[in-house]
Amino acid sequence: MNTWRIDEDALESIVIGAGILGTGGGGNPYVGKLTARKLLRAGRPVEVVALDDVPDDWNLCVAGGMGAPTVSVEKLPRGTETTDAVLALETHTGQRIDAILPAEIGGGNSIEPMVVAANLGVPVVDADGMGRAFPVMPMITYLIYGISPFPCALADEKGNRVVFSHGVDSHWLERLARTSTVQMGGFAGCAVAWMSGADAKRTAIDGTLSWARRLGDRVRRARVAREDVLDGIVEVAGGRPLFHGKVVDVERDSAGGFARGQVVLDGFGGDTGAQMTISFRNEFLVAWRDGEIVATVPDLICMVNREDGEPITVERLRYGFRVAVLGVPCSDLLRTPEALAVVGPPAFGYDLPFEPLEAR
Amino acid sequence: MNTWRIDEDALESIVIGAGILGTGGGGNPYVGKLTARKLLRAGRPVEVVALDDVPDDWNLCVAGGMGAPTVSVEKLPRGTETTDAVLALETHTGQRIDAILPAEIGGGNSIEPMVVAANLGVPVVDADGMGRAFPVMPMITYLIYGISPFPCALADEKGNRVVFSHGVDSHWLERLARTSTVQMGGFAGCAVAWMSGADAKRTAIDGTLSWARRLGDRVRRARVAREDVLDGIVEVAGGRPLFHGKVVDVERDSAGGFARGQVVLDGFGGDTGAQMTISFRNEFLVAWRDGEIVATVPDLICMVNREDGEPITVERLRYGFRVAVLGVPCSDLLRTPEALAVVGPPAFGYDLPFEPLEAR
Repeated sequence: MNTWRIDEDALESIVIGAGILGTGGGGNPYVGKLTARKLLRAGRPVEVVALDDVPDDWNLCVAGGMGAPTVSVEKLPRGTETTDAVLALETHTGQRIDAILPAEIGGGNSIEPMVVAANLGVPVVDADGMGRAFPVMPMITYLIYGISPFPCALADEKGNRVVFSHGVDSHWLERLARTSTVQMGGFAGCAVAWMSGADAKRTAIDGTLSWARRLGDRVRRARVAREDVLDGIVEVAGGRPLFHGKVVDVERDSAGGFARGQVVLDGFGGDTGAQMTISFRNEFLVAWRDGEIVATVPDLICMVNREDGEPITVERLRYGFRVAVLGVPCSDLLRTPEALAVVGPPAFGYDLPFEPLEAR
Repeated sequence: MNTWRIDEDALESIVIGAGILGTGGGGNPYVGKLTARKLLRAGRPVEVVALDDVPDDWNLCVAGGMGAPTVSVEKLPRGTETTDAVLALETHTGQRIDAILPAEIGGGNSIEPMVVAANLGVPVVDADGMGRAFPVMPMITYLIYGISPFPCALADEKGNRVVFSHGVDSHWLERLARTSTVQMGGFAGCAVAWMSGADAKRTAIDGTLSWARRLGDRVRRARVAREDVLDGIVEVAGGRPLFHGKVVDVERDSAGGFARGQVVLDGFGGDTGAQMTISFRNEFLVAWRDGEIVATVPDLICMVNREDGEPITVERLRYGFRVAVLGVPCSDLLRTPEALAVVGPPAFGYDLPFEPLEAR
């Protein structure tokens, strides 16, 4: 089997790339990076296996953090939460996991699978279930395309473990798991979507971990070469710049375990005189330019520091940041009718049809 | 092994006896009775085994309803919730249960173990973990005397099952399970305290199911013989009458999944001119006669219809009811220092030492 090993250099790039592709959410990657780097330096390798190379009979599950990203930077994790959640699933099923699948290629949740993989001595699969980040569990391609959300396990840093063994559907799981997460302090480790290698090949979005790495590599190269980082990002991520502006207002609250709100940008450069408003619920949802919609979920609305391409996550949003906003077309797996029913604008409370970024 | 079989006549008596000993809580027994009677009529026997006769190597667990009694009479159960919770524990542990232990001898939770036992074809043990009813899980002798609260399972009528596989302590379990119960609609089936027969003999309150039956038998005999039912209750339950009065005020709310509040009684008969106030949190906690405390948890404060001895549970409290209030000394297992730390007045927010009813 062909695998590649994540070293500190690759980790550095993935943090940047996944931060951009996380569309403002997925959890802040900084703490996750520190944890992963500590494990790498302790000699625990993280191997990445291509989706095509995963044997059909392997046991896989999704591992990541659940909760409000705003909490994850204030309440520092112990670093074992998500591993404990996977162990709880193993105990419950009486079987061992052969590899870890990322839930989303965004922020902390693109790093967390590496931490779990290093702890358990198994590889990470080069794929994810969103090709970006989303705020709730049902919005994951594995579940959209028929993998059972049960059993699912949550674990916290205090030693509590909860297994959701059976249930009505992923919305009930989300509801029960979200309230447990709030009780656990607003952030918990989560393991879900126990599946075979064959199931993963049918439902995962392929190659997203290496995509994030290439994107991060490109940003870092642009910084060193003093090129425009935006050109580099568009070159690897696709899509196009939507706006250049300064953050002039941020509204947010953390109701129900989410970071909800909106950010307002005053344009500069070619966008001087224009204004952009972007709503978010952990991730950026809809972008309006002077009142007109220019991009919506499930397409990616990414925000980076204008100068160095550093991703701006919602919990870091602050008055005065000078940023660039990019629109990136989402994976085709998110544009099918069954996916749009779960991740389209109406699923977030917007009475709009989805219009692909390329068609706007 | 000696067992006795619960028939419709025994069920009728247990409902009355456990209703009285439930001190206002434990869930309304009416719906449970209907479910149990249906199973009995369908030919599913319920066998009761004496605690002494339980083999040391049997697997036992506690099964009952969790939530606000006020909800359990409005949101009718499917009848399989608690059985599903036990099945979830069996699946999780990979072992079968040999008998069901009642959590409390009070209201619906004295009937629910019979429903589970009939569904699973195993006996019920003639014992419980409270010798009365209490509002939260840590207040159970099994846990007070060292049985692990993990794993614990919850199940609802919709098909959701949650297993609390590991955790900090019973207070964390209570916190996590209570919020899940609220999400499940305010009432759920619960299975907890997986233990051996030997552990049960060490930690259970012995003989309480047959005690409830004898109490109910006595009330029914008094009704037929037109004797004073209060004399009959005191004869079997012990203790003494504390007050005769009419309900003149009831305050309540259902915050946090509990039925909390207080009831005020205006005295009649020998108590004319006096007033009694009784606070409750699912169960009656403290009784004041004209401002002076006459009984507190963990002693039993029981309320019955003055005429026919029918138990009055908190969710049935209503203006105009003419009732008798009785005080009954609790089990010695609830009066040790380790038990009083969990079930004494301070555990319910009252800054009072526990003074036994007999000493007042």
